[in-house]
Amino acid sequence: MRAVDVIRRKRDGEALQPADLEAFVAGATSRTWADYQVAALLMAIVLRGMTAEETNCLTGLMVRSGVKLDLSDLAGPKVDKHSTGGVGDKTSLIVAPLVAACGLIVPMMSGRGLGHTGGTLDKLEAIPGFRVGLSLDEFHTALRRVGAAMIGQTAEIAPADKVLYALRDVTATVESIPLISASIMCKKIAEGIDALVLDVKCGQGAFMKTRDDARRLARSLVVIGNANGVRTEAMLTAMDQPLGRAVGNSLEVIESIETLKGRGPEDLESLSVALAARMLRRGGGAANDPEAESKVRAALTSGRGLDKFRQMIAEQGGEARVVDDYHRLPSAGNRHIVAADRSGYVNRLDAEGIGRATMLLGAGRERVEDRIDFGVGAVVKAKCGEWVKAGEPVIELHFRDLSSLQPALDLVQSACEISEKPPLPQAVILETVS
Amino acid sequence: MRAVDVIRRKRDGEALQPADLEAFVAGATSRTWADYQVAALLMAIVLRGMTAEETNCLTGLMVRSGVKLDLSDLAGPKVDKHSTGGVGDKTSLIVAPLVAACGLIVPMMSGRGLGHTGGTLDKLEAIPGFRVGLSLDEFHTALRRVGAAMIGQTAEIAPADKVLYALRDVTATVESIPLISASIMCKKIAEGIDALVLDVKCGQGAFMKTRDDARRLARSLVVIGNANGVRTEAMLTAMDQPLGRAVGNSLEVIESIETLKGRGPEDLESLSVALAARMLRRGGGAANDPEAESKVRAALTSGRGLDKFRQMIAEQGGEARVVDDYHRLPSAGNRHIVAADRSGYVNRLDAEGIGRATMLLGAGRERVEDRIDFGVGAVVKAKCGEWVKAGEPVIELHFRDLSSLQPALDLVQSACEISEKPPLPQAVILETVS
Repeated sequence: MRAVDVIRRKRDGEALQPADLEAFVAGATSRTWADYQVAALLMAIVLRGMTAEETNCLTGLMVRSGVKLDLSDLAGPKVDKHSTGGVGDKTSLIVAPLVAACGLIVPMMSGRGLGHTGGTLDKLEAIPGFRVGLSLDEFHTALRRVGAAMIGQTAEIAPADKVLYALRDVTATVESIPLISASIMCKKIAEGIDALVLDVKCGQGAFMKTRDDARRLARSLVVIGNANGVRTEAMLTAMDQPLGRAVGNSLEVIESIETLKGRGPEDLESLSVALAARMLRRGGGAANDPEAESKVRAALTSGRGLDKFRQMIAEQGGEARVVDDYHRLPSAGNRHIVAADRSGYVNRLDAEGIGRATMLLGAGRERVEDRIDFGVGAVVKAKCGEWVKAGEPVIELHFRDLSSLQPALDLVQSACEISEKPPLPQAVILETVS
Repeated sequence: MRAVDVIRRKRDGEALQPADLEAFVAGATSRTWADYQVAALLMAIVLRGMTAEETNCLTGLMVRSGVKLDLSDLAGPKVDKHSTGGVGDKTSLIVAPLVAACGLIVPMMSGRGLGHTGGTLDKLEAIPGFRVGLSLDEFHTALRRVGAAMIGQTAEIAPADKVLYALRDVTATVESIPLISASIMCKKIAEGIDALVLDVKCGQGAFMKTRDDARRLARSLVVIGNANGVRTEAMLTAMDQPLGRAVGNSLEVIESIETLKGRGPEDLESLSVALAARMLRRGGGAANDPEAESKVRAALTSGRGLDKFRQMIAEQGGEARVVDDYHRLPSAGNRHIVAADRSGYVNRLDAEGIGRATMLLGAGRERVEDRIDFGVGAVVKAKCGEWVKAGEPVIELHFRDLSSLQPALDLVQSACEISEKPPLPQAVILETVS
């Protein structure tokens, strides 16, 4: 199978056959295809698309380019949750311990933040000592002992995805629902899970700006999961304003712990409980929806979820005392209040602008190699629909250097809007795709 | 200008701006763009297309990536002819001396055959000693002394084209009218010519199979030439059966000389005279069409064209006596007659099949590095529309090894068809695009 023939077929709009896709994935992984041939095919896929069959097949081949975990020695269903990325989205830190506290196994492989969105691994690393770089053996052990563990993608998992992702980033071939879907799902399928709940973000601060695009991505992900033996369901959730009130790594760890203590912001708690309940239901840990939700609520109110989080931190080398003493987390020291310039309702609180502002403060990365300042970030004091008096705080910025403050402030100011009339209330959970 | 932004714009269907194209051509030539980025943009161009403005601009930038010849010290208009490639197409060897004999300068840079089509450089190299690899200085001297010279593309000419062409070949991004046009025209414009006549082949044995595609390519080429200061005109000509009767390098040199002696096949002579007359007319060497044709005819019948060919061979180191003694050309030794299996009219004589058959005999290349056997080839004994008796020769194959004969024979046999009724007569010159 010559590379140029496979590329030509996709260029001409044909569906690739399993043998074509096999040649592509093997060629990319072993580097027997030149990078320019991989790039040409990626662009042809972006512009010509792929059928569901092609995408399912590609995903399976990407899984088999590396190791698939075998967790069959662990009792209980294996489930995971994945979010397509948002601002202030720290639900992973909450749902993993909650679901593990309900007796399921949560083998979560997460990513780092890039662009204006945060990443679970960065948040976890705000906890002193926390190791996200466990080997697959250590991961297995942690899952057996705690029930939940959270690590980064190891070298053994889906090496084809690493090659493709690196090339897509520099050839403007990221924006393709089939390629995005395959990349997300190959890593999840490789975890060896039985069920998966996807949180597909939608809105101003998400990669998918419209409901239609988000729905198309959700459907594609669900089809791939089910075709590859993972019971998969997706929720479309709003990402117009930040989720919860905290944006920034230490701040988000604190808000996650507060939520596990039953004191979290309403939107964050309700979404976390809903996601965890879906995981339970899909994983077979509850006979029906009300039972799933009540089990999760019980894990939350009893403190068993919080205990599980403590155990998870300790198992992965982190300082578990942060749960009781937030001063053990990195902190930026300086605060700046962005106050309301008039009285009224908060009408707009653009997630992307706030995400970018915290990135400028040092909470995120412009490039993969950039270092993160765990202490900086933003706290939303008044969310959309809340009434503020002129001069009252809307956002509190936590910063280290004055030099980074001004550009961040400019972004925050244009991200916020106050109006006389309250905005229409917006639900966080928009719809379910299964 | 980041490569990824330029690629993204074309991916999204935007027209690239001059600064984008400048970044692309400079990046490709200097290798500051990675090959995979060049390949991704090429695929986006194939699938999204380019406007006439983009194509003109790209071509100009490709010209300026290298040297443009300055022939202003040579008296007389500078003109050239270019063919998009066919089987048995040896018109360059005929028109260059004819037009030079009429007092114009013909600085012809040609290519090699690839696939089933022949190349002018290969044909010239069948002449013992002929050097197609003159330096630009030697080329200039030859033009001053003879008026016509024929060489290959040197390293100084359009280096951007070399980089792009090499990548296109291995990434299935050859088939794009804007890219084909820019590649052809940048080399012609770099010759420093005033006028250009294009012979765009159309039909079963051409790269452009349909009249519509050929016309689109012709229009694109004409627009680019005129936009870049070269008076350009195109002829669409039929390439369903081989042009003339000879296919193969020595055989085509002989047929070219025969044509310059006034004894060539009718279709080859009439097309050669028409092309040469258009070159004269476009170059300003004749006041009107009848004058152009009569000047060319005079150069042919007087033998001045033949003399010019002799001079050109000698100037480029070749053995000029081949003109009078064909035995000095390489010859294959063995002949095989493909005879008519029934009496009737030759109805079909597929140029591509016959081209491929001579390639299998050794007349062409499968890969750039393959060596050519100048002596082998095919002679068409009965062209389309001619009547043959059963057992009479239709094609004579000139071959060296018996092992290569059988596969070539299979191709030739399925390329020929004899029928009771004569086929509709077909003109060689289909239309003119200017």
